[in-house]
Amino acid sequence: METFSATYHIDTDADAIESRALGVALEQTVELPPGVVQDPFVWENVLGRVREITPETGPDARGFRVVVDYPLGASGLDPAQLLNVLFGNTSLQPDVVLLDADFPPSLTAHFPGPRFGIPGLRELLQAWDRALTCTALKPMGASPEELARLCRLFAQAGIDIIKDDHGLADQTFAPFAERVRACQAAVEEAAQETGRRVIYAPNIMGTPSAMRRQLELAQELGVQAVMMEPMLTGFPGFYELVTELLEVPVLAHPALSGAVRMAPPLLLGKLCRLYGADGVIYPHFGGRFAYSQETCQELARNLRQPWGDFPAAFPVPAGGMQVERVDELVRFYGPDTILLIGGSLYRAGDRLLERSQEFVARVHQASA
Amino acid sequence: METFSATYHIDTDADAIESRALGVALEQTVELPPGVVQDPFVWENVLGRVREITPETGPDARGFRVVVDYPLGASGLDPAQLLNVLFGNTSLQPDVVLLDADFPPSLTAHFPGPRFGIPGLRELLQAWDRALTCTALKPMGASPEELARLCRLFAQAGIDIIKDDHGLADQTFAPFAERVRACQAAVEEAAQETGRRVIYAPNIMGTPSAMRRQLELAQELGVQAVMMEPMLTGFPGFYELVTELLEVPVLAHPALSGAVRMAPPLLLGKLCRLYGADGVIYPHFGGRFAYSQETCQELARNLRQPWGDFPAAFPVPAGGMQVERVDELVRFYGPDTILLIGGSLYRAGDRLLERSQEFVARVHQASA
Repeated sequence: METFSATYHIDTDADAIESRALGVALEQTVELPPGVVQDPFVWENVLGRVREITPETGPDARGFRVVVDYPLGASGLDPAQLLNVLFGNTSLQPDVVLLDADFPPSLTAHFPGPRFGIPGLRELLQAWDRALTCTALKPMGASPEELARLCRLFAQAGIDIIKDDHGLADQTFAPFAERVRACQAAVEEAAQETGRRVIYAPNIMGTPSAMRRQLELAQELGVQAVMMEPMLTGFPGFYELVTELLEVPVLAHPALSGAVRMAPPLLLGKLCRLYGADGVIYPHFGGRFAYSQETCQELARNLRQPWGDFPAAFPVPAGGMQVERVDELVRFYGPDTILLIGGSLYRAGDRLLERSQEFVARVHQASA
Repeated sequence: METFSATYHIDTDADAIESRALGVALEQTVELPPGVVQDPFVWENVLGRVREITPETGPDARGFRVVVDYPLGASGLDPAQLLNVLFGNTSLQPDVVLLDADFPPSLTAHFPGPRFGIPGLRELLQAWDRALTCTALKPMGASPEELARLCRLFAQAGIDIIKDDHGLADQTFAPFAERVRACQAAVEEAAQETGRRVIYAPNIMGTPSAMRRQLELAQELGVQAVMMEPMLTGFPGFYELVTELLEVPVLAHPALSGAVRMAPPLLLGKLCRLYGADGVIYPHFGGRFAYSQETCQELARNLRQPWGDFPAAFPVPAGGMQVERVDELVRFYGPDTILLIGGSLYRAGDRLLERSQEFVARVHQASA
């Protein structure tokens, strides 16, 4: 019986842990009280099995780590049902955190993984030995012309990937089609001038059919990457676009992923990669969000470590980063990283081009 | 300037609250540091405004309640972007909880709300003055024949709505098409025998296009209601199916909604109703999940209270309920409620029909 496994933290006492662990295994599969399942087929092919219960260790440690094996068939190899088995109902139980999951090759074979990943994005950008740079077009409310002006400026500064802010949807002040047309033209013109290729990555967001239309248009217009928010618009839809329509790399954005009870290294590190992200944006420690240094390290490791045939995906640390932190960031992550500095560049006002050039130069230097 | 508003709990000190509140308003719209936005258009039409800051009250109260007004245009009136503005990035900040949101009629006019709601479901079931009954087909792993047998049994017992367990996807042991065909036939046969109409509600889950195919097939086969998991498969896709394809009532299931930092009365009470749910399943207090009595009360109130042209939607309390609690549940919620008892019925083993009949009789009596 092939299985995949989930690791949960369960916050309970030693005398309750066995029944709580069994409770999770039942909840996530048969959703019946203990003792009710009689059918040997269900017992064998569906029921989750508690494999391991170990006390958490370390100072202030409480509760237990529980590994549950789920038969592969319970997932139906379906991108929605997989998440449902991992954490569907248990997400509602406040004593449980989903820490990690492990998938056999027979499961991952049904998922795309990154189609470009680190090697593919480097090839596209012809940038081999250094960390990459990324910034965001903002603010929401700016016109397509203003966003295209910024896009050209960042392209002239040599920033590798210029992405839409995740708040740029299809609002009246910068409709998707106009914005993408103008920004893509801007990076192409800048490339003509500078001889250096940079990528504009529009934000794909809305209902499933709106996202499909946006993606088709963006690819027609020649964009070389896109951004999506899998927790906001749904992992199953992300999976579908990646497997059916997407011809360019995709960055995953963590909007609405504040389900703090799913560990970020799993959610953003493993699951985003499994479902096809080529790079994953997440809040770096010390910025205006609150991931710890260990979380960032582990998240980046999950994105880059060997995983079957999946290429490595880029960590894209972000969230209140400053140009002054570039050296530290490159030391921390190494060169297989995209450094995303957005809002703080804009503080430069009229010196935005110079500040952007400084960002680029610092990253190139720090990677040397 | 028309606005919609969000209410956040922010866990910080009195001397930091003003800047944290402003930080949230900026984060959720322009995503720029204070002072950078110069453009008067953006200032006027996009930027979130802190309207109110009040200290939390009560014993053990800490932190503040902050109301932020967002210009309607920031949402683009888009079902994905609305959630993004409410809690996209801020969901990543552990000091912030999204407590509530209020929407003007010019926003709700772009959302379906319940198409059937309490009056429409009562009409369908011809059940006017009592609480309704609901149970779940399980376990995952049972064959279509076995599920159809259970479906017929529950229909004979007179349970109003017989829904798939939310773990029934399109697995090999009970493929969607076979299962729905068999179960729908079972309720129709039972209706012939008993002269009483009950509804089978299959679980619609998968990628956006798989869900569309499932829904088309289910409606062709004559099903009279369906269930979906908006947090698992995405609110924008839920919105799209409701507005474009769905001809029957839909129950929303809370799988993966353990984002404890979005208050359940908002997420399950208001947002599910706004996006079109006719009934919303959620864990009742005292079961195997952990909502408080106040949370359940408030959630039910949000589903049923007057809201523009939207009909009321059914609260569907569930999660480890027992037949013995029926009286208490009906007293607590009143008759405009669907009582969902799943797993605990199955404990009856060979007496499942009798136990189901007892469930039905108790609800009818308690509502009298």
